[in-house]
Order: sequence, then structure tokens, then C-alpha cells
Amino acid sequence: MITEVAVLNVGDGRTKRFEAAFQDAVEIISAMPGFIDLELQRCLEEPSRYLLLVHWAQLEDHTEGFRASPAYERWSALLHHFYDPFPVVEHYDSVLRT
Amino acid sequence: MITEVAVLNVGDGRTKRFEAAFQDAVEIISAMPGFIDLELQRCLEEPSRYLLLVHWAQLEDHTEGFRASPAYERWSALLHHFYDPFPVVEHYDSVLRT
Repeated sequence: MITEVAVLNVGDGRTKRFEAAFQDAVEIISAMPGFIDLELQRCLEEPSRYLLLVHWAQLEDHTEGFRASPAYERWSALLHHFYDPFPVVEHYDSVLRT
Repeated sequence: MITEVAVLNVGDGRTKRFEAAFQDAVEIISAMPGFIDLELQRCLEEPSRYLLLVHWAQLEDHTEGFRASPAYERWSALLHHFYDPFPVVEHYDSVLRT
């Protein structure tokens, strides 16, 4: 299992609309092969910032399966216009968990 | 419950020693009031980068309880010399979880 990690900065005054769009977008991503679960979190110090953590069975489920799918076009259309700047997405593997 | 989030960049060639020190540091933080659990993850694209996620019952368990404790001095002595640059630590609250 790997974790997709993205810090999402949403334009000022758009956080409510972003959260509503994200609710719809979850249905798209959660139907993808290899999707395990996700969590969207909001920053206390900077409330227009979010952290997205998505667990995938394998790296390629995200980088190849999801990103090359028609579903990704719908995901992008729903969400990408909220981001300023466009996020850097990285992938992480667990080292230690209590 | 809130999540403490830090991206940790460890100096080149020091990742094995960092991971070993972190194993010791876990015993310190996990004994603190309000600590729930943590995960340390390692970046696939940039292997000297880690993501630390710590769940605390309340924000103040981290920002006041842990950081003002003698335990934090031991934690810092074990870990802080690995970081370059010194990390920005933020706190997040869950918006949505599948």
C-alpha cells in the first residue's frame, strides 16, 4: 500500500465550494481499481490549505490507472480549478506505524 | 482528534540513522498525554524526505503539553539534528474520510 500525498491550497473564499465539489469527486476516485481509502484534512493555521491522503494498493493504480482514465478527467474538471498554485503530488511508503 | 503534519527532509546519507533514531523517539512521544498514534512515511520520489503524521486528542496536547515537556527535549536531541531545513509543522482537522 502506498499513500498519495498532496497539499492543496484553495483560493480565498472558495473553501466551501471546494469541500462541496470534493464530496462529489470522492465518488469518482473511490470507484477506481486499487483505491483503498482517502482522507481530506483542513489546516488549522492556514484554513485555505488542505492535506489529501489517498491510499492505493500500488503506485501504478494512481500514476497509470487513475491518471490515464476518463474518470480522471471528471475529477480534474471538478477540482483542479480550485488550486492556487497547482499542487505537487508525491507518494509515500510506510516506515513505521504505532 | 487533530493531526500534526511535518515534512521532514533528512540530510543525504543519513536516512538509516534517522530511521533508527526515530524508533527510539517513538517511545518518548507515545507516552505523552493526548498522543493517539503516529505514522512515519518515506517519499518514493525523494527518498531523503519523510512525512510524519501524529494524531493527538487535542491541539494543545502537542503545542503545549508535549512541546513544554522535558520529553520534548529528549525528542529534539534525538531527531532535530537530522533535519535540513528545519521543518514547518502544521495541524489539520479531518473534513472527510472514506
